[in-house]
Amino acid sequence: MANPSLLILPGDGIGPEVMAEVRRVIDWFGANKNLTFDVSEDLVGGVAYDKHGTPLTDETMARAQKVDAVLLGAVGGPAYDNLDFSVKPERGLLRLRKEMDLFSNLRPAQCFDALADFSSLKKEIVAGLDIMIVRELTSGVYFGEPRGIHKEGNERVGINTQRYTESEIARVARSAFELARKRSNKVCSMEKANVMESGILWRDVVQEIHDAEYPDVELSHMYADNGAMQLVRAPKQFDVIVTDNLFGDVLSDCAAMLTGSLGMLPSASLGLPMANGRPKAMYEPVHGSAPDITGQGKANPIACILSFAMALRYSFDEGAYADLLEGAVEKVLADGARTADLMGPDGGTPISTTEMGDAILAAL
Amino acid sequence: MANPSLLILPGDGIGPEVMAEVRRVIDWFGANKNLTFDVSEDLVGGVAYDKHGTPLTDETMARAQKVDAVLLGAVGGPAYDNLDFSVKPERGLLRLRKEMDLFSNLRPAQCFDALADFSSLKKEIVAGLDIMIVRELTSGVYFGEPRGIHKEGNERVGINTQRYTESEIARVARSAFELARKRSNKVCSMEKANVMESGILWRDVVQEIHDAEYPDVELSHMYADNGAMQLVRAPKQFDVIVTDNLFGDVLSDCAAMLTGSLGMLPSASLGLPMANGRPKAMYEPVHGSAPDITGQGKANPIACILSFAMALRYSFDEGAYADLLEGAVEKVLADGARTADLMGPDGGTPISTTEMGDAILAAL
Ligand SMILES: CC(C)[C@H](C(=O)O)[C@@H](O)C(=O)O
Ligand SMILES: CC(C)[C@H](C(=O)O)[C@@H](O)C(=O)O
Repeated sequence: MANPSLLILPGDGIGPEVMAEVRRVIDWFGANKNLTFDVSEDLVGGVAYDKHGTPLTDETMARAQKVDAVLLGAVGGPAYDNLDFSVKPERGLLRLRKEMDLFSNLRPAQCFDALADFSSLKKEIVAGLDIMIVRELTSGVYFGEPRGIHKEGNERVGINTQRYTESEIARVARSAFELARKRSNKVCSMEKANVMESGILWRDVVQEIHDAEYPDVELSHMYADNGAMQLVRAPKQFDVIVTDNLFGDVLSDCAAMLTGSLGMLPSASLGLPMANGRPKAMYEPVHGSAPDITGQGKANPIACILSFAMALRYSFDEGAYADLLEGAVEKVLADGARTADLMGPDGGTPISTTEMGDAILAAL
Repeated sequence: MANPSLLILPGDGIGPEVMAEVRRVIDWFGANKNLTFDVSEDLVGGVAYDKHGTPLTDETMARAQKVDAVLLGAVGGPAYDNLDFSVKPERGLLRLRKEMDLFSNLRPAQCFDALADFSSLKKEIVAGLDIMIVRELTSGVYFGEPRGIHKEGNERVGINTQRYTESEIARVARSAFELARKRSNKVCSMEKANVMESGILWRDVVQEIHDAEYPDVELSHMYADNGAMQLVRAPKQFDVIVTDNLFGDVLSDCAAMLTGSLGMLPSASLGLPMANGRPKAMYEPVHGSAPDITGQGKANPIACILSFAMALRYSFDEGAYADLLEGAVEKVLADGARTADLMGPDGGTPISTTEMGDAILAAL
């Protein structure tokens, strides 16, 4: 059988630096576990725009559709801030999500024991935190039509459309319920059904799918504003949270920051099964391109490495290897390895991106 | 000259309980400071629905338009959860905001010294926190058309429209810049200009108003997901935040919860000046109707009392009296007066809603 295939899109900023460490991890699995991937690499985001005038070429898009999984670094940066909306680096990422139909975005917010002190929150409130946010990723106000800026009389009007179909809600709800069954069997769905009809439909469909197919899972509903509050007040009340594209964007960043481990958090974006049974999939760190530290060897590669662990688990059914890799990360943290983002105010000397890679490889 | 007029809409849940304490404060100013208001009272929310089949009658709406300021308690509760969207308690509140054109919603997130321990956040991160969130309140996805749930083929589709005009953005931006000038002269505007055209227009207009009219104010822009992160990571970096209706809803609740003082936080919703020079205005606590503690004398009246202090400041130009009332609140807190919501895990005996009212009156 052919090797599983990976397309690596390092992107902008610290993307290439952290991805270099992931490549070493991939090589390690080839050399030591007989798990060899066909790896190819291509451009996305600002670097693609610089070369091709577009943040994602049709060729790259076609390649992404063919591989077993895409690993993405990060996109964007101040150099691209004044680009036209249609060619912004982010459009490359959004095109990948939309055309691969990656509707279920899994964003764990997990507090690593060794790092609980880094959280802004009191230790007892975050220690042991382990939430999974499931964010709808291919619809909602990110993609709804009509959209744009036009003139009405003598002023400009900006319009976007929040639009959800029943089946779009149903499929992401199912993925949340499935995940919950493998965790603590508890889902909280968040919307603003008190002010938005699209939120009413969201709530109703989630409830219907629950009642018909997942009555064993504990389901609750919460308004998204209260959700933001509860995440700060008592995040451990949650197990799986399911929400729409825009709320998911804001709430998952809030949840990620609670843990104090932002440079640590991976994500998986999953779609429908392909002919080989694997889901369409893209994996990327939650952090961005971090232009302020680009090229300085300061970036923390762990989020990107843990994104590859998610790939092992969700795309390649190698849960044991995912555990192995996650265990290696926990071990190096427990041993005190710290990149600059993980240094407390009273200092110590941080290790570099490559040194963190070295440590993780050594712990494998 | 006629006395200034107040319309009190206690609403649902703990609304009437906390408003009763505000009435005592109002009476105190009449008796002691020769500041007498013409006070009337009416129904809004679930109680209005129970009596009239609508959460806000045309008569009440007309009265609200005529007074100098509206004081609102809270709306909603589980008894009304299954009501049709068009008659939900929240629609009464939204109608008031829209028809009074209260476009600028001021939500302070302030950490009271005596209460810094109640925050989920580490004390050094929240102590002294004093942010003002200015939320656009009459437009955006809350009010945009088209909206609703309809059938497409054999499935339901939920639609809402995010829509902002240039003048809607400009006027709320101005109110944020004006406020900033009286504070630390710093505004951060939040949107998702990287994925939404309405966010691009928002950013551009805020920048234009700044450059043309408020070049002395320090202005920055942030994506709203990063904003949520930064609020948790380092909230003291902010002074005034200006954002749209939906982001404002979520981010202001997040910010409020940071302070650990949710039962303490007031808000003001301001519109255009009336014939007498006062702005159209409604004042309400940030907390909700708290059905779980309704009728038990446990509610904290401070948020509602501080909302009246905002009325003194923004509607009646009585900044000195606002200071006096806020000072009385700080004093009773420093003296250790605590309603149930302000009790630590190791207990003590909380005082009742009325006893908190007593304490504040005594401190005046
Ligand atoms: C970069 C941006 C388009 C993206 C989003 O808004 O979805 C990012 O914030 C994320 O959460 O992945
Ligand atoms: C009650 C509800 C309609 C309201 C809103 O969403 O604006 C509330 O959450 C608020 O923030 O005032």
